[in-house]
Amino acid sequence: MNYNMKKVYKAHILFTKEVSRFEVLENGYLAVGPDGRVVGVSSDLASLDSGDAEVVDFGDCLLIPAMNDLHVHAPQYRNQGIAMDLELLPWLRNYTFPEEMKYADRAYAERMYRRFVRDLWRFGTMRACVFATIHTESTRLLMNLFLEAGMGAFVGKVAMNRHCPKELSESLDEMTKGYEELVAEFNEPEALVRPIITPRFIPSCSPNMLRSCGELAAKYQLPVQSHLSENKSEIALVQSLEPESSCYGDAYDQYGLFGQTPTVMAHCVWTDGEELELMKRRGVMVAHCPTSNFNLASGMAPIRKFLNEGLHVGLGSDISGGHDLSIFRTMVYAIQVSKILHQQNNERAFLSLSEAFWMATKSAGSFFGRVGSFEPGYEFDALVIDDRDLNHDNYSPLERLERFIYLGDDRQIAHRFCRGKIITEPK
Amino acid sequence: MNYNMKKVYKAHILFTKEVSRFEVLENGYLAVGPDGRVVGVSSDLASLDSGDAEVVDFGDCLLIPAMNDLHVHAPQYRNQGIAMDLELLPWLRNYTFPEEMKYADRAYAERMYRRFVRDLWRFGTMRACVFATIHTESTRLLMNLFLEAGMGAFVGKVAMNRHCPKELSESLDEMTKGYEELVAEFNEPEALVRPIITPRFIPSCSPNMLRSCGELAAKYQLPVQSHLSENKSEIALVQSLEPESSCYGDAYDQYGLFGQTPTVMAHCVWTDGEELELMKRRGVMVAHCPTSNFNLASGMAPIRKFLNEGLHVGLGSDISGGHDLSIFRTMVYAIQVSKILHQQNNERAFLSLSEAFWMATKSAGSFFGRVGSFEPGYEFDALVIDDRDLNHDNYSPLERLERFIYLGDDRQIAHRFCRGKIITEPK
Repeated sequence: MNYNMKKVYKAHILFTKEVSRFEVLENGYLAVGPDGRVVGVSSDLASLDSGDAEVVDFGDCLLIPAMNDLHVHAPQYRNQGIAMDLELLPWLRNYTFPEEMKYADRAYAERMYRRFVRDLWRFGTMRACVFATIHTESTRLLMNLFLEAGMGAFVGKVAMNRHCPKELSESLDEMTKGYEELVAEFNEPEALVRPIITPRFIPSCSPNMLRSCGELAAKYQLPVQSHLSENKSEIALVQSLEPESSCYGDAYDQYGLFGQTPTVMAHCVWTDGEELELMKRRGVMVAHCPTSNFNLASGMAPIRKFLNEGLHVGLGSDISGGHDLSIFRTMVYAIQVSKILHQQNNERAFLSLSEAFWMATKSAGSFFGRVGSFEPGYEFDALVIDDRDLNHDNYSPLERLERFIYLGDDRQIAHRFCRGKIITEPK
Repeated sequence: MNYNMKKVYKAHILFTKEVSRFEVLENGYLAVGPDGRVVGVSSDLASLDSGDAEVVDFGDCLLIPAMNDLHVHAPQYRNQGIAMDLELLPWLRNYTFPEEMKYADRAYAERMYRRFVRDLWRFGTMRACVFATIHTESTRLLMNLFLEAGMGAFVGKVAMNRHCPKELSESLDEMTKGYEELVAEFNEPEALVRPIITPRFIPSCSPNMLRSCGELAAKYQLPVQSHLSENKSEIALVQSLEPESSCYGDAYDQYGLFGQTPTVMAHCVWTDGEELELMKRRGVMVAHCPTSNFNLASGMAPIRKFLNEGLHVGLGSDISGGHDLSIFRTMVYAIQVSKILHQQNNERAFLSLSEAFWMATKSAGSFFGRVGSFEPGYEFDALVIDDRDLNHDNYSPLERLERFIYLGDDRQIAHRFCRGKIITEPK
């Protein structure tokens, strides 16, 4: 296909412009400009003023925005779906840290990271906020693999220097030098793949390292990602390490790592009161990881409350605390968490399908720019869903989408687009 | 293959003879007698005294017991994965009951039931406790489809005559006549497919209908299945309908439907105290349906407590309250429920993988006879798992099984056996 001209795609189009409901265009048309951005959607081709644009007809397929994964650990990919019987600490000590050490080896990293990028692709995730490891060389490699694939990512070289094996500890100088190399290579503001400042979490970073992270974020105007208020013993540990802070989030804030630049914090299971207010004030985004929160017995994040309060929330797979790379299945888990909270505290409505979909698309996508919707000006990140094996009995387009989200998998994803371009299977 | 002689299968063999741990035989052998029952397993072929038995080598595959689904509604198959935003009552009124009415039409039933049986097969479920509808003719059809497939099932013509649309209400005479027809056709005690007495639940059946159900169970020595203590408003309704009963379970008990013959009750989310004691005394089995309990915001069944108390527990998909037909994924949900309860009531350990696997195999299998283990004398119900697409990095057999349970799907199930015979895809 020639991407230097306007294109029109025909399919059953579904997206969530608003959180509370789906836009559904049965046999609709979507026009994409030569810049890879949506020009418009309509049920009437003529109204799109598409001139002699090529019309690609996806027949009876569904066309939806692509998925965004706001929290995933690429070097934990080998551990996906194992050791789920362990509690957090033995899991870190016996599985996670030993695995991350292997990424000092570029060849090992390449073998694993290629699989990781390919599987993100398989499940229709076109943008991701990724934790790598401390290793600059394999982090660079991962960034190049995303570029090669044509998929969007913020990739974080992980900063850590305490409460961890010495092989995963870096000096301040090495950390800074590593980031500056990556910034020099990748930090075009509009680039599809960019670095993100990634202190692992407060307990893993000395105050000096946290301060340097904040300074790097400010100096290079880089976004920030980390973990926040995932479980109660972690929160108590942070309080003991940062006794002057008024809450976990405030500890990040002291170091310029809490919304001074665009920031996403994973989990926020126990975020409330002052921390919640600070997140609102700073525009800090929540990466809700319900699968992981189940598997690690962390608790259930009060997403209904966060949405009511106006927090920005997206979804994260959190491999390998989470076991499932599919953001569609993560939506199901998000709805289920909210149903348990609804059952336990009867006053709050549970999340609807459109709310979960909106979180995974338009809301999470906002961290990457104008991504996650089919409104004019949005980058065309999209999936074509061929669900004929699930659609055996005249379901409506919205029922078909719901069934695909609940029952489907990679087999129904027929095509993937990122920034207007079709993305073929990464090598 | 000739099934009239002993066979030996070679693979990595895993099963749960005991609840607390896996038996793992790397490159093990399993001998099956001409009666379709396991003769023994060993790492040493010679010790199996297999003479000139044909050895079928499954290479690097895993060999595990097949899955058993203790609670599933076959006529809700069309509704799988839709209308999940609805609460129980509008869901029943607008989706479930109208769908079940269609099963008065034999042609519709055949189209849907063939898909249902094929998909149970796909996901490796070789035995199931199934709710059909009130319609004798389509229930008979479903039983014949199971027989044709060679898969085991207790199939329940549903008894109901109140609090439901008139199209789903049957007279006592029709109900009794329908059951007696099916009993005459299918009630060999050793048959693979048998009827099961299935009052929908207390609110759907008049006292006379419940009494007739209990009498039929006693007269023909038929097992019983129903729903129990799924959600709090249902429990209150039962109390108002059966004011003399001391608990929901006791209401069934009054009618001879609570362990007088082998009985399985779905959900038991709120079972405690007297009801729990009665279930223990009567040997009533629990069909734990965690997926459905999430989706319908019913609550979380205290399975750790049930196991500690010595209750018999198996797993159910509960389509279409549950959205997922895979009992493997149901295991994951069962573990996750137990992790939330663990987090909320810190004293109880969460379920381990072996406990979840044991519930789905040996424990659930006990409802069907000697099913669900590879101990001598057990019927050979088994799955061959070819997980090469998940096993890219030298995992141990047990890690491979865990990964398959958490990440896998029907694609990795290479062969299925029921009662010693290989089961090919149903038509």
